[in-house]
Amino acid sequence: RTYAKEHMADMVRDLSEFCALPSMAGQPQGLNDAAAWVARSLEDCGLSVRRLESGGPTVIQAQRLRPGRPTVLFYNHYDVQPPGDEDAWRFPPFEPRQHGRRLYARGAVDNKGALVARLWALRAWRELYGELPLGVRFVVEGEEEIGSPHLPALLQEHGPLFQADGCIWEAGGVGAQARPLLYLGMKGVLYVELEARGTAQALHSSWGTVAPNPAWRLLWAISSLKSPDEDILIEGFYDTVDGPSREDIRQVQELPFDQEALLEAWQVPGFLAGLSGAMFLLAHFYAPSCNLDSFQSGQVEHIHTALPNVARAHLDFRLVPDQQPEEILDLLRRHLEEQDFADIVVRPLGPALRPFRTPLEHPFVQAVVEATRTVFHPRPAIFPTSGGSGPMYLFGQDLGLPVVSLGVGHLEDNVHGADENVRLVDLERGVAHVAAIMERLAQGPAQ
Amino acid sequence: RTYAKEHMADMVRDLSEFCALPSMAGQPQGLNDAAAWVARSLEDCGLSVRRLESGGPTVIQAQRLRPGRPTVLFYNHYDVQPPGDEDAWRFPPFEPRQHGRRLYARGAVDNKGALVARLWALRAWRELYGELPLGVRFVVEGEEEIGSPHLPALLQEHGPLFQADGCIWEAGGVGAQARPLLYLGMKGVLYVELEARGTAQALHSSWGTVAPNPAWRLLWAISSLKSPDEDILIEGFYDTVDGPSREDIRQVQELPFDQEALLEAWQVPGFLAGLSGAMFLLAHFYAPSCNLDSFQSGQVEHIHTALPNVARAHLDFRLVPDQQPEEILDLLRRHLEEQDFADIVVRPLGPALRPFRTPLEHPFVQAVVEATRTVFHPRPAIFPTSGGSGPMYLFGQDLGLPVVSLGVGHLEDNVHGADENVRLVDLERGVAHVAAIMERLAQGPAQ
Repeated sequence: RTYAKEHMADMVRDLSEFCALPSMAGQPQGLNDAAAWVARSLEDCGLSVRRLESGGPTVIQAQRLRPGRPTVLFYNHYDVQPPGDEDAWRFPPFEPRQHGRRLYARGAVDNKGALVARLWALRAWRELYGELPLGVRFVVEGEEEIGSPHLPALLQEHGPLFQADGCIWEAGGVGAQARPLLYLGMKGVLYVELEARGTAQALHSSWGTVAPNPAWRLLWAISSLKSPDEDILIEGFYDTVDGPSREDIRQVQELPFDQEALLEAWQVPGFLAGLSGAMFLLAHFYAPSCNLDSFQSGQVEHIHTALPNVARAHLDFRLVPDQQPEEILDLLRRHLEEQDFADIVVRPLGPALRPFRTPLEHPFVQAVVEATRTVFHPRPAIFPTSGGSGPMYLFGQDLGLPVVSLGVGHLEDNVHGADENVRLVDLERGVAHVAAIMERLAQGPAQ
Repeated sequence: RTYAKEHMADMVRDLSEFCALPSMAGQPQGLNDAAAWVARSLEDCGLSVRRLESGGPTVIQAQRLRPGRPTVLFYNHYDVQPPGDEDAWRFPPFEPRQHGRRLYARGAVDNKGALVARLWALRAWRELYGELPLGVRFVVEGEEEIGSPHLPALLQEHGPLFQADGCIWEAGGVGAQARPLLYLGMKGVLYVELEARGTAQALHSSWGTVAPNPAWRLLWAISSLKSPDEDILIEGFYDTVDGPSREDIRQVQELPFDQEALLEAWQVPGFLAGLSGAMFLLAHFYAPSCNLDSFQSGQVEHIHTALPNVARAHLDFRLVPDQQPEEILDLLRRHLEEQDFADIVVRPLGPALRPFRTPLEHPFVQAVVEATRTVFHPRPAIFPTSGGSGPMYLFGQDLGLPVVSLGVGHLEDNVHGADENVRLVDLERGVAHVAAIMERLAQGPAQ
C-alpha cells in the first residue's frame, strides 16, 4: 500500500491513458486501441500475452505460471458503457480529469480502474519481492457491457488457458462505513420481446366491438405470467430453484441494509409485497424475478381514440441457480400456447446469461475473505450474488472455478451513469487488496 | 334534381369557397370566417340568423317558421378535422380542386358538403315553388370534431330555438350499389387515461425482485376490466343496457354486410370472439365496448433492460342506451378500488358523450324513409346507430326530438383522411333528398 501511495501519480497517468480510449460497442478503433493497451501493459508486468479472436473484439489472455503453486485467474473487461447524455457530465467522459482525490472518466471504475489496480499490484510485488508468489492468469474481454456474446465459443475452444484454482471477478468496492463488498455470484437473465398483431392498419375505436385488438391480447397474455401477489405463474418456473441454506440465511442477516435510505431514494411508501429487512434481502438475492421492462401500443401522448394494430413488450427474467435461460424460454412459450396465446410472438433479445453462485463455505472464498480482512478495517460484507448478470457462469460452472468478485467502486462512483469516478484511496487499497489476495492464495486453501 | 344539375357549377363554387376556410380547432380565424360564411349563406336563403356564443366558436342558429305547419331542424357543423400529413394529399387540403366528377378538399363531405346541399335545397325550393312547405331551423356549430364541449350549456340556455318535430343529422351517404344509408343513433363514449407511478426514477431491472413496477400494476388493473372472452367485468356495467327488439333484430338482418371484404381489408383470419353475419352486426350496433387505445411504459425501441417508473394507458368505452358516461366512470373507479388498484389514477379525457337512438318505428323515421325512396332507386339501409359518437343525445334525449342522420358521403370519400372528396352526383342527389324530405315532412307524420 505504501508502494501504491508513492506511485499514485504514475498509476493515475496510466489509468487516464486507458480511460481516454473510447472502447465501447460500435467503436472498433477504440476497442482495438484498448485491447492493445491491455496487452502491452500485461507484457510490461512480465506476463506472456495471447490475443484470442472469436468474432468479436480481441480477448486478451495473459499468464505467468508457477509450477507446483496455485494459480489465480483475474477476469476483467476493457469495454465500457456508452457515456449517455454527455451534457450531464462535469468533464468530458473520454478526457479523464483528476479533481480533488478522484479521477473522473467513463470506465474509471468499471472496469478500467479495477484492472489498473490489479496491474499495479503485480508491478508492486515484482519490484518489492521479485517473483510472484503464485501463478496468475488474466482474461480481459471487450464485450462485457453487451452480454459477452462471443465468449462462450472462445472458452469452449481455449478452455485450458483459463484453468486456475479460483477466479477473481471484476466488480466490487466499498460501501457505507468503508466496508468492503464481496460478491459470490451473478443472476442469470432471459430478455425477450413479446408481440401481438391485429388488423392491417389501426382502426377507428368504434370497431372495438368486433375487431381484434393486439393491445388487449398482449396485456392478457402478460397478465397470465405473474399474479399481483408476485407469483410467477409459468408452469415449472420454480422447479429448479435452489433456495438459501441455513448458513446463507444467517449470512444475509449480517449484510448492511439501510431500508429507510432506500425508501427515501426511491420515494415509495414500501417495497414490493410488503418485503422488509432480511426478507427483502432474501427475496432480492435468492428469488428469480419477472420484470416488465416496457409495453407499447398506440400513442398515449395523443388525445384521440383509436384501435391499435400492433403491441410490443419487453420482459426480463432474472434467474437464480439452477434456472437455465433456454429452459425458461421453452417454459414461457409452452405457457402462452397452453393459455390460448399462441398468437403472441416471442423473440429472445440479446444473449441469455446463466446464473452462478459460489458457496460461501468454499475454501477459496474463505481465503479471499481472510486476505480482505488484512487490508480493510471493517469486516467484509459478503453478498451471495450481485443483482446483475454476466458471463461468470462460463468460469464458475463450465470451468468449475470458485469465483469472488471485488473491485474499486464506492457509493458515489456513478458506474454506467454520468460523472463516473474512482477515488484514489480506492485505487490504493485496491492494489493492496490484490497483493494480499495473491499472498494468501499462495499459501493454499483455507482449512 | 334537375335544378341541382343545372346549378352544379354554382354549387361547386359555393362549396369551394367554404372549404377554402381552414376552420379547425386552434385556428380561430378560419373558424370565424366559416361561421360568417354560414350565417351569410343562411340569410341568402331567406332565414333569419342568430349568432350564439357560449365560450367556443360561434354557433349559428337560423330559422324560417311556418305557423301551423311542422318544423324540421337540421344539425350541421362548420369545423373540420385537421388535414393530417399534407404530403399524403393529391391536392392541398384547403385549396379545393375539381378533378373528374369529384371535388377534393378537407370538409368536402364532412360536413361542408352536406350543409351546402341543404342550402341549395332551400334555394331550389324557393326559386321553383316560392315559400318553403314547412318550418325549418338550422343549428351549425364549430366544435363537433372535438366533442362539442360547449354545446350542452348553449342548448340549456337556448333550448326553445332548437325545438322542432324532428331533426336531420349531419352524416350519411350511399354505400355499395348506390344504396342510401340512414343512421338513427350514435354511441356514447367515455374516454379515460389510467396512470400508475412507481419509484422516483427508472431503476436497474434487477430490482424487479423488490421494487414496485408501475407497468405491472397498470397491466393487472386493466386486465381486471375485461376477460379474454370479451366480457366487461366492471360490476354494474351492463345493468342499464337496452338490447335489440325483435324488430331491431329483423332489421339488422337486412343490412348490407360484406364480411369477406372486411376480413380482406383488415387482413385478419376472423372477427372478435368468432362473430359473423347478423351476430357481428348486433354486437357492433347493440353492444357496448371497452377498447384499449394505447399503453405506454418504458421504451420498447431500446434493447436495454430497465424497471420503468411510470405507466399510462388510454381506454375508451363506447356506450349504448341507457349507459351514461358519468355513471360508467364512477363504476370504473369503484371497480379499481375494490380490486385493490386504488393506486391507479383515472383521468377523463375529452368530453363524455351520451348514447342516443331513435326507434325505427318512429313516424318521423318512417316519413324520412318514404322521402328517401322517392329519390334513390335502391331501398335505404337503416342503421340503428353509427359506430361513432356525437352530441345527438342533446337533441334526441334532452330536447326529445326524433333524429335521422343522412348526408353526401360515398365509399371512397376518405372522411377524416387524406384526399377527402365529394362526388358531384352525391351533391346533386343530396339536394333532391333534402327537398323530398321537406315535401314529405310538410304532410305530417307517416300513419
